[in-house]
Amino acid sequence: MLKNTIMRWKLPLVCFIWETAMIVLFGVFARYDIGADPHWSEYKKANNISSDSENDFYYRYPSFQDVHVMIFVGFGFLMTFLKKYGFGSVSFNFLLAAFGVQWAILMQGWLHTFEGGKIHVSVIDAGGSMTIHTFGAYFGLTVAWILHRRNLSKSSSNEGSNYQADLFSMIGTLFLWMYWPSFNSAVSNTGDAQHRAALNTYCSLAASVLTTVAISSLTNKSGKLSMVHIQNATLAGGVAVGTAAEMYLTMYGALIVGFICGIVSTLGYVYLSPFLSSKLGLHDTCGINNLHGMPGIIGGIVGAVTAACATVGVYTLDGMNEMFRFTGDFAGRSPSTQGGYQAAGIFVSLAFAFVGGTIVGLILKLPIWGEPSDENCFVDVVYWELPEEEPDDVEAAKQYVTHAPDQFKEINKD
Amino acid sequence: MLKNTIMRWKLPLVCFIWETAMIVLFGVFARYDIGADPHWSEYKKANNISSDSENDFYYRYPSFQDVHVMIFVGFGFLMTFLKKYGFGSVSFNFLLAAFGVQWAILMQGWLHTFEGGKIHVSVIDAGGSMTIHTFGAYFGLTVAWILHRRNLSKSSSNEGSNYQADLFSMIGTLFLWMYWPSFNSAVSNTGDAQHRAALNTYCSLAASVLTTVAISSLTNKSGKLSMVHIQNATLAGGVAVGTAAEMYLTMYGALIVGFICGIVSTLGYVYLSPFLSSKLGLHDTCGINNLHGMPGIIGGIVGAVTAACATVGVYTLDGMNEMFRFTGDFAGRSPSTQGGYQAAGIFVSLAFAFVGGTIVGLILKLPIWGEPSDENCFVDVVYWELPEEEPDDVEAAKQYVTHAPDQFKEINKD
Amino acid sequence: MLKNTIMRWKLPLVCFIWETAMIVLFGVFARYDIGADPHWSEYKKANNISSDSENDFYYRYPSFQDVHVMIFVGFGFLMTFLKKYGFGSVSFNFLLAAFGVQWAILMQGWLHTFEGGKIHVSVIDAGGSMTIHTFGAYFGLTVAWILHRRNLSKSSSNEGSNYQADLFSMIGTLFLWMYWPSFNSAVSNTGDAQHRAALNTYCSLAASVLTTVAISSLTNKSGKLSMVHIQNATLAGGVAVGTAAEMYLTMYGALIVGFICGIVSTLGYVYLSPFLSSKLGLHDTCGINNLHGMPGIIGGIVGAVTAACATVGVYTLDGMNEMFRFTGDFAGRSPSTQGGYQAAGIFVSLAFAFVGGTIVGLILKLPIWGEPSDENCFVDVVYWELPEEEPDDVEAAKQYVTHAPDQFKEINKD
Repeated sequence: MLKNTIMRWKLPLVCFIWETAMIVLFGVFARYDIGADPHWSEYKKANNISSDSENDFYYRYPSFQDVHVMIFVGFGFLMTFLKKYGFGSVSFNFLLAAFGVQWAILMQGWLHTFEGGKIHVSVIDAGGSMTIHTFGAYFGLTVAWILHRRNLSKSSSNEGSNYQADLFSMIGTLFLWMYWPSFNSAVSNTGDAQHRAALNTYCSLAASVLTTVAISSLTNKSGKLSMVHIQNATLAGGVAVGTAAEMYLTMYGALIVGFICGIVSTLGYVYLSPFLSSKLGLHDTCGINNLHGMPGIIGGIVGAVTAACATVGVYTLDGMNEMFRFTGDFAGRSPSTQGGYQAAGIFVSLAFAFVGGTIVGLILKLPIWGEPSDENCFVDVVYWELPEEEPDDVEAAKQYVTHAPDQFKEINKD
Repeated sequence: MLKNTIMRWKLPLVCFIWETAMIVLFGVFARYDIGADPHWSEYKKANNISSDSENDFYYRYPSFQDVHVMIFVGFGFLMTFLKKYGFGSVSFNFLLAAFGVQWAILMQGWLHTFEGGKIHVSVIDAGGSMTIHTFGAYFGLTVAWILHRRNLSKSSSNEGSNYQADLFSMIGTLFLWMYWPSFNSAVSNTGDAQHRAALNTYCSLAASVLTTVAISSLTNKSGKLSMVHIQNATLAGGVAVGTAAEMYLTMYGALIVGFICGIVSTLGYVYLSPFLSSKLGLHDTCGINNLHGMPGIIGGIVGAVTAACATVGVYTLDGMNEMFRFTGDFAGRSPSTQGGYQAAGIFVSLAFAFVGGTIVGLILKLPIWGEPSDENCFVDVVYWELPEEEPDDVEAAKQYVTHAPDQFKEINKD
Repeated sequence: MLKNTIMRWKLPLVCFIWETAMIVLFGVFARYDIGADPHWSEYKKANNISSDSENDFYYRYPSFQDVHVMIFVGFGFLMTFLKKYGFGSVSFNFLLAAFGVQWAILMQGWLHTFEGGKIHVSVIDAGGSMTIHTFGAYFGLTVAWILHRRNLSKSSSNEGSNYQADLFSMIGTLFLWMYWPSFNSAVSNTGDAQHRAALNTYCSLAASVLTTVAISSLTNKSGKLSMVHIQNATLAGGVAVGTAAEMYLTMYGALIVGFICGIVSTLGYVYLSPFLSSKLGLHDTCGINNLHGMPGIIGGIVGAVTAACATVGVYTLDGMNEMFRFTGDFAGRSPSTQGGYQAAGIFVSLAFAFVGGTIVGLILKLPIWGEPSDENCFVDVVYWELPEEEPDDVEAAKQYVTHAPDQFKEINKD
């Protein structure tokens, strides 16, 4: 069984084929957008742009970098809470993100800027779609459910944190928390919408922290706090405010959303995850359902309601049309219709997540993937050359035994 | 005594009441400022603003994010140097900061933008007031002095670092050091003042590093360096240059300030802290007096002198009036008067710190707060569910004993 | 021998003399540039600048901060992979960087803005010169080669990582990786060149990650990955694209550069470093040759070829002249000549590196520097007061022995 885990040919082959494909696809399709092309100077002149500060780079690059810190440091370190899976957490996240960003450039190009057989790459649109959390969470959970192992409990001693691992994980949490306002505002229209998206996210996140701490203490019989709640549920407010962040949610509205999601998410860790694991065979190691799933659904509802309540008085007519893209084919759509479509969108993404997750789960169940045995889940040693740990403990035990023989004699006298 | 530490009802109650109060107060008072309001487009037109880049968001958001990294990652991790208090350090800092930012939005709104019963919230003013370090340090030290425990030495084995904890702490130090120029310049006037504040802070910080290393080595009988100095005293230059950062301090002036403060702060750790603890009963675990207290006072004096020396030739008339707010009621005030007022301000903030600290200290002495017993200070286990550590050592000892029985026999022969 | 390592007078003396020299030199030479001077307002009026956003501070400060994170957190933590040298890694990097930035301000001032006996300091130019990696790497390697110790193997048990140290090191890797686009674009011309430099660097880095993982797995007999490759070779793409980053390299060109350098760098760690160490006596602890040396040379060649292929059709005439500085004395130079000069530049920097490294190496061989003995390399204890580690293991061993005396009796029965 362990033999399966040897990745010596599979992993390099996947990496080389993928990257070669990327080079070919970029060669065929990708071109610098005008802001990154030497003809920018001519474009500036032709369009009466007086300053380089109008180059999209200066508007988008700081947010883009913040979102990168979230993806690479934030998610990478958040997952190091597993005491024996730190190398895998931070490095496989790194590998997948490096895959992902290249693929994202192509996909977004094909969807948005495909013209004359080419796509035009500017500063990369780093995400924040309405349904990313809900879709991602339930897609992944469906895959996990299908891949469920009856005997995973053999690895249960590995599936936990230790003191250092929990501190590494907090590096991830804090960078995610701090830069979530950049994430939710990264793709907003410039000006007031972007400004508002950052403010709303910030308020919601702050409220989450307080209710997470409250519920964490309240659900422990000694009132003690749990690090897994602080590491995760404090971020739920950022997820839930995603859809409505750039809308006129109001700041106290954002606080209420964060207030509720801190509670729901922490309760999920305390009660729902153990229930799903023992009763439904859904093993959710890092609590995706609590951090992205439920808060994502709440966020979808909040977004739909906030959209349905939009008025011209609040947004101005131009503002409303720009915010909800009531232009082109959608000109004249009413806010209540928009709210209905957004609500329907939640169900559509859930359906896609379940169907897609089932298909991918079944593919991953094929016995060709080199997965670790039931005893070897959550441990780096399967895929990593680990540094030799010095036998400090043995050395210490030896010294103790050598230097305190009297006690041993005493023990052995009995 | 230990029973007191159960926070199961107290902590959740405080969190819920506080956050509910925030929601109500935000609902009543807080409104989006024009830069975050959909009427921004109309405002732009009415005020002949041609580009979204003039929205305050684009001037302030990067500095705002830097300051957030300082507060959440910087201070949170700086305090993880305590080997058994890492969870508390990083998480209680997180909780207090999430409390604090909401309160700060309201307070600053009431003080600065209260109009027609509402406050107008834009990108948040993240601080940097003239007296924040001095006031904060001596307020906290007064509280600590009143709360002094006669038998704290029972916890002395807990009050220390270990190798990993000191490295985690350096994450905090470095992010504080790097972003201190953003902190000191965050609330400066845009343009040359902000530019100058960043430059001066940077020079002062760099000089602090060198003199900290020098004194750390010089005061150790083997010339060995101490991590606690590197973690803290290297930042003293940033504190001390706070008041004068945006003034025409000159770069060599900033270097001199940093030079002196690296020395004073490190000497404080080596000689003053132990003296205060043993003779005056003032126990200053993380050396607040050395990092914020004394450098804050030095900074106040530097600021007063630099202000008193201001001339129209250096600043231009407009520049001087703008820098020192010689407008409205203060029109026509002279630099030397300004310097005198700033010097007086140091004493006023010290007085407020001692009086306020005494009151709060006495309140915290009331036996209702669930403080840990004298044996249980500086340890997470009082307030946290800790991960079960694997009995690696025991296991190692067992294996050693099992596999090397000869030595044991030998021992027991004696 | 150990006596030599006492730095009590040498280190403080060096710090004080250096910092005092800095204060004097800054006092004599350094002045605020116009963007940081109170006369900025008058300058704006005189030059028809309408907005403070045109102050260089707002263009350069975010990149400047990113590069600082790379220098202080990135390189500082990357080097903490040595399990017993974490304090030295992060702190000596901190000290040298604080030295370095002050020196850099002066040097760049003398070279670029010296006028009327003064230099004018604005936001600091953080580097990225064409030959920085190649020169730095081979300079350092030459020094290391001259300082080679025959008996370094006595320290070989210290020269390695452990699980926690490798995770700390990944903090460094990720911040370097994420901000490398800022580093390569920090000193580019504003507008399209800066935009393009960030994009190209990003593509090259992403490709490096995939081929690094591939080769790391492929060269291990069980297909297991090695952390040292992930920590270092993933960055090789950023080094190699440095020279050509702002040129019209095309994105698939950048992907190809990263693809190749991930392979070359990882192979260097696997095969070349052990060979150089055992055969040539060149001991390269952190693989400088693999991360900066070889990728730097590749980058120089890529830059020379890309420059030689430049055409007016791609760059526009103005763009080409601005990109390659074909102005003043260089007006009319052809791209192919430029490419030739750049290729020659590689050899010039290699020559300077070898000669300079030899001289410095010989100076460092003088017996006045207090270097550690052969047994004490790679350990903090020589230069640092280390925290006392609690005898947890001993305690655990003791408890085990006390609570399980039966087994001991059994052992002793034999």
